[in-house]
Amino acid sequence: MATVPGARIRVSPLGGVGEVGKNSTLLEFGDNLILVDAGVKFPETELHGVDLVVCDYGYVAERLDNLVGIVFTHGHEDHIGGLPYLIMQLDPHDPIPIYGTPLTLGLISVKLKEHGMLGRVIQYAIQEGQRAKLGPFELEPIAVNHSIPDAVGLVIHTPVGTVFHTGDFKFDPTPVEGRTTDNDRLRRLGDQGVLVLLSDCVRVEQSGWTASESAVRDALEQLIGKAPGRVLVTTFASNIGRLREVVRSAHKLGRKTAVVGRSMEENLRVARELGFMDIPEGSLLELREINELPPDQIVLLSTGSQGEPTSVLSRIARGDHPLVKIQPNDTVIFSASPVPGNEESVARSIDNLFRRGARVIYQMIDPRVHVSGHASREELRHLLDLVRPQYLVPLHGEHRMLWLFRELAVENGMPPENVFVTEIGDVVAFWPEGGEREEPIPSGSMLVDGLTIGEVTNVVLRDRRRLAADGVLFVSVTLDRETGELLSGPDFVSRGFLQLDAADDGLFDEARERVTVALEGDERRRPDVSYLVGKVRDTLNSFVYERTRRRPMILPVVTEV
Amino acid sequence: MATVPGARIRVSPLGGVGEVGKNSTLLEFGDNLILVDAGVKFPETELHGVDLVVCDYGYVAERLDNLVGIVFTHGHEDHIGGLPYLIMQLDPHDPIPIYGTPLTLGLISVKLKEHGMLGRVIQYAIQEGQRAKLGPFELEPIAVNHSIPDAVGLVIHTPVGTVFHTGDFKFDPTPVEGRTTDNDRLRRLGDQGVLVLLSDCVRVEQSGWTASESAVRDALEQLIGKAPGRVLVTTFASNIGRLREVVRSAHKLGRKTAVVGRSMEENLRVARELGFMDIPEGSLLELREINELPPDQIVLLSTGSQGEPTSVLSRIARGDHPLVKIQPNDTVIFSASPVPGNEESVARSIDNLFRRGARVIYQMIDPRVHVSGHASREELRHLLDLVRPQYLVPLHGEHRMLWLFRELAVENGMPPENVFVTEIGDVVAFWPEGGEREEPIPSGSMLVDGLTIGEVTNVVLRDRRRLAADGVLFVSVTLDRETGELLSGPDFVSRGFLQLDAADDGLFDEARERVTVALEGDERRRPDVSYLVGKVRDTLNSFVYERTRRRPMILPVVTEV
Repeated sequence: MATVPGARIRVSPLGGVGEVGKNSTLLEFGDNLILVDAGVKFPETELHGVDLVVCDYGYVAERLDNLVGIVFTHGHEDHIGGLPYLIMQLDPHDPIPIYGTPLTLGLISVKLKEHGMLGRVIQYAIQEGQRAKLGPFELEPIAVNHSIPDAVGLVIHTPVGTVFHTGDFKFDPTPVEGRTTDNDRLRRLGDQGVLVLLSDCVRVEQSGWTASESAVRDALEQLIGKAPGRVLVTTFASNIGRLREVVRSAHKLGRKTAVVGRSMEENLRVARELGFMDIPEGSLLELREINELPPDQIVLLSTGSQGEPTSVLSRIARGDHPLVKIQPNDTVIFSASPVPGNEESVARSIDNLFRRGARVIYQMIDPRVHVSGHASREELRHLLDLVRPQYLVPLHGEHRMLWLFRELAVENGMPPENVFVTEIGDVVAFWPEGGEREEPIPSGSMLVDGLTIGEVTNVVLRDRRRLAADGVLFVSVTLDRETGELLSGPDFVSRGFLQLDAADDGLFDEARERVTVALEGDERRRPDVSYLVGKVRDTLNSFVYERTRRRPMILPVVTEV
Repeated sequence: MATVPGARIRVSPLGGVGEVGKNSTLLEFGDNLILVDAGVKFPETELHGVDLVVCDYGYVAERLDNLVGIVFTHGHEDHIGGLPYLIMQLDPHDPIPIYGTPLTLGLISVKLKEHGMLGRVIQYAIQEGQRAKLGPFELEPIAVNHSIPDAVGLVIHTPVGTVFHTGDFKFDPTPVEGRTTDNDRLRRLGDQGVLVLLSDCVRVEQSGWTASESAVRDALEQLIGKAPGRVLVTTFASNIGRLREVVRSAHKLGRKTAVVGRSMEENLRVARELGFMDIPEGSLLELREINELPPDQIVLLSTGSQGEPTSVLSRIARGDHPLVKIQPNDTVIFSASPVPGNEESVARSIDNLFRRGARVIYQMIDPRVHVSGHASREELRHLLDLVRPQYLVPLHGEHRMLWLFRELAVENGMPPENVFVTEIGDVVAFWPEGGEREEPIPSGSMLVDGLTIGEVTNVVLRDRRRLAADGVLFVSVTLDRETGELLSGPDFVSRGFLQLDAADDGLFDEARERVTVALEGDERRRPDVSYLVGKVRDTLNSFVYERTRRRPMILPVVTEV
């Protein structure tokens, strides 16, 4: 492409820096916008009651006419799951052009269908080796290995230079699908010159190279082969390559596989329709048929690798599943590692399975049963050696990872000032001779709770935290509007505070007396309601704290009749 | 000791099986009770607002006159921290005899003093090599290595045989205090015959041997030596050996150390008084003096290794500390691993320190900076080889660890039926020819919140969870007692529900209308208040769910005047 003097390419992470999850990166050239991925994040525990966290796409919403496309690198939730909530943030509009490989689009379609949004987009299939024109950008997908098939990195050719966005990736020399990260193309890209590398770095803390997926396949096959009875394997529902290999291994060993769990069944259906699930005829069976075969001819593939309480495996672990009860000689394999934040729920599932008599194998006691889909430290170095970018913006990592990738790049010879560690909404502009920070754009996160998006705010969350810690105490008082005389109450209702038998505990009796005295002793004639509400709250706050050392939220209602 | 025909020794874990923390084991011989340890556990996040979890000591409380003593193996919170709450569960009583090594008793005294309970116990110092008589038991402490000095295992000689309780331990061949786990005595004990081994197994998932504490000392010394500026080291406040070695290394390298954080300063004071803190004259300095020396002559030892939000290090990481601000060239070393459940808070501290420009070194990127205080798998095998017990009861582990230790013991030649995996309150009785389960005893956990113990029940917790998830909606209505006419309301107060501007949102207007219609449309003449409360709740429940897909707790108050 011919370079345009004075032009710049602007890069803004809207998510995926400082936090794992909700990955989304905005690129701007002139007025034209291109968005790479739109992820969703499952909230930390302190986000009480919040179902999902997505990016604030307000900046994109205001420039919707200039959005040349949304490009997806692969079909994981933290890259595609935010699309319906992005669409919710937009005014009604002509269908938006979205781009992805066939499996990625297949998984996106399931999601959009659930939300009744299929008509809000036009889908364009892309694949490695074929270029696509998006406004002033030319898009060139490159095959990468990740823990889901059909993943790509994106070369984005722009009038000021080449940007390479890795997506999520690793360099697996022996992937089970036989499709490796395209080393040759990356090296040629480096020869031709890359202006900016935008790179996944979530596994930079791990030294060396990530082990190959084929090692997991071999380990699982060996464990299934040695198991005396049934084998339950749980893994991520999206790891279609691993699901396929388990089914094949089981078949080879004379076992049939039943797949259970809604998300896994759904992914399997999409993968089969699109040709990503090449398994032998008759290798599957229905869950209801599993008691018709001897235990040593059965493999169960199930959801629940993260200890999700409503998952199939958690129900089996609790003894709550109608069809599957743990039997002596059952082997359960956790072919997954806990996503940060899920450590306790996973541990609980494992504990419960041991309690019921299963032999449980998990990564801590057999490291071979899972590998990450991300590049470790030496692979990131290998990437830098291939691509030799002028500038680097680490993505998809928590803050410490971005800094560690910067250290690695500097160690590898990049000038420190050419590596930009960013926060969400930061803007870095690049042109053939340089790169610099510009003013950040409006950005942030939106909380999804129930049917609504954005209505759970920090105030609501602060209240929920306080309610969770000490509960709530309501007090209602009815006064005569004319005389100020106490007609009824104070009456108390508390929840989440103390287990008090209101009948025999002196606490509320004394509280009633204190409030009555406070109201009656007031010097002001006909004080207004908000003054009285404040007075009741202050009286109770100090009384309750003094007596219990707790601070329930105190909510008075003063009614005048 | 002469054996007594028909007599049995009964072992009951009151805590510390199925859960890490709150370790406490009861032994009974005839009427005589001996308690080993009384720990406290920091609650999981779903125990909203609960400060601490301790064992239910009701069974002991009813047999207090027969309690011959409480013996403590070492001074960690999860072994001594429950003592004040145990005392709270007892009726007023003569002082209870407690036994521990000097440092353990020193740390217990600090705790009892804070609770004004020093007079509730009589302290007896024990030490390795000296036997003590406790009713029908003879107690023989044995030196063990752990991540706190002065830790012991307990040989309990009983009329029916020998019990060995390991306490928390590892076999460190080169401990920094020069006091190793007493291999010789353990081997002789095995030669003489051990009826029951009660053993720590929290690290059974880890293959091999735990690395030595002296490797940590060397690594820290090397990192401090290479650091260009200040070094902040954070570790567990109770790891007195490590604190001492950091001070010594710093001194050797021409640096002075400031110790910050209440618990660390307190532990240091106790350790110095009791002779466990042999450090060179002039090696310490006060925090307020740190700006008087050049950065490369400073080491800061601080609390906060678990990312506790109120700790010194977290405040430094957030930029909130009045005296310590992160400077370029600062190095922060996390000489600790996150306790399960603290992964996210630790990660946040590390992220924030990177953000402020510190170079942060933690176990993930440099495994040498911390070692566990517990025995790994091969050390547990070594223990079994030394002690050769007739029976084994795994302790101090989550459920999966108890089972894995059982697997290990069976692999090592023990008959499976001789290993008892227990739940809290289970009783296993042993006599010279055998062992069997008996009826469980009353047991469980007590929740400590604010000033009270046991008043936060499952009902309270369930309400807190619901409040945390969806908030609360309070509705108040005032009716005429005679006519049933609506005098005031419905008025709404909500917290933690939605961020609604009550003035302009139609939700509450419509809710008001629905409730009014429900109340006015009622066919019953003068219905009672509880009926009306139910009716208001049902009306609002379905209306709110239909409109928002959320279920806030709905609390109506109907007042009649």
